Amino acid sequence: MRIPVLTNLLEESDALAATNRQTFEAAGVFVVNLMSSPGAGKTTLLAKTIDLLQSRGLRCAVLEGDITSTLDSERLAPLGVPVVQANTEPFGGDCHVGSHFVRAAIEQLPIHELDYLFIENIGNLVCPAEFYLGEHRKVVVLSLPEGEDKPVKYPLMFRECQACLLNKLDLLPYLDVSVPLLRERISTVNGDMIVFPVSAKTGIGLGTWIEWLEHGRQELQARHVGARHDVS
Amino acid sequence: MRIPVLTNLLEESDALAATNRQTFEAAGVFVVNLMSSPGAGKTTLLAKTIDLLQSRGLRCAVLEGDITSTLDSERLAPLGVPVVQANTEPFGGDCHVGSHFVRAAIEQLPIHELDYLFIENIGNLVCPAEFYLGEHRKVVVLSLPEGEDKPVKYPLMFRECQACLLNKLDLLPYLDVSVPLLRERISTVNGDMIVFPVSAKTGIGLGTWIEWLEHGRQELQARHVGARHDVS
Repeated sequence: MRIPVLTNLLEESDALAATNRQTFEAAGVFVVNLMSSPGAGKTTLLAKTIDLLQSRGLRCAVLEGDITSTLDSERLAPLGVPVVQANTEPFGGDCHVGSHFVRAAIEQLPIHELDYLFIENIGNLVCPAEFYLGEHRKVVVLSLPEGEDKPVKYPLMFRECQACLLNKLDLLPYLDVSVPLLRERISTVNGDMIVFPVSAKTGIGLGTWIEWLEHGRQELQARHVGARHDVS
Repeated sequence: MRIPVLTNLLEESDALAATNRQTFEAAGVFVVNLMSSPGAGKTTLLAKTIDLLQSRGLRCAVLEGDITSTLDSERLAPLGVPVVQANTEPFGGDCHVGSHFVRAAIEQLPIHELDYLFIENIGNLVCPAEFYLGEHRKVVVLSLPEGEDKPVKYPLMFRECQACLLNKLDLLPYLDVSVPLLRERISTVNGDMIVFPVSAKTGIGLGTWIEWLEHGRQELQARHVGARHDVS
């Protein structure tokens, strides 16, 4: 429902997101907003991604968005990274993570000691796409069992994100889904989108995804060092 | 975002839903609101369900909810049933079908000639659960690749629905998912929920689902005949 009063709330949300972004830039922490349908495999992907980044000596944290429950945070606990749980149910059950949750997480995290902050958004291909949180990259995870038509049916999500992980590649032999057709449909919606076919379960394809993340982080941290030199 | 003005809009929406329900009761058409994550298989399930109902001489129609595109309506075209497409994008991109779309569909459909109206809601496990449209049954489709935690993470959807179809049973051998655990989690959220493990692709399990639908329709139409006798 679109009603006039929402415009102000969106402006407030965007202003807070801009403040979040300034904090992330100053701290040199690269922030990725992970979005998908429920059950596309964001948490498994996140666990594998963090494990790979940790093996390179990189420091990660997670903001776990859920309407209710701490199930995903519990799944990430063995990694030993700081996790902040954002449950929207006590605040009206919002269908997406808001920039105020990100602000609150910043206060609780050792933000200056981090290389990466991952925001695992609420499982929803619609609403989270509408909200900028201050992140450097928006990434959509689409699992192959969801079929080939999702980019066309949820175009805002695919327009807003810079990258798409095609997850559950291990199930491909058992599905009537064509990866080339999926790529084609993604490119009709967003010609600039980078596509990574992966299986978070088996680890296939995660190497190029990690390189892409690292490229973004190094660019940010080079900028950050540059900024510090300018100041000194 | 919950803001006071929404209360009035929700009241309006509920009032219109009640009017829709009266129309359905008077016409003796049994209305099912199908909800799920994107890609859980609602359209395939709907096509198979309608095919099975048609083979019994029953008359069906569909209200196809999508943010944008007519892909699902096109997939249903071969069945030869009346399909009304509800795209929310021109009206602000709502993340769910609203009762005003159902009202508009009623105007376009041969409502007195129907036995069933299926509303295929927008793929989203969050927002559609909040809106009553005038339907007789709310049904959630959960595909097995989505995992066992969804009932606990999206409890409102599982509380609001009377039945859950566990779809893509054909993929079970390739997944780390336990149907008994899923049933257990569903029952912790909604002890009254009826669960149908099915594969819309292979047709497994659809018989008991059809019987459940038929039981509901026959009950409604018996009530309807009763009401007509009372009047005469």
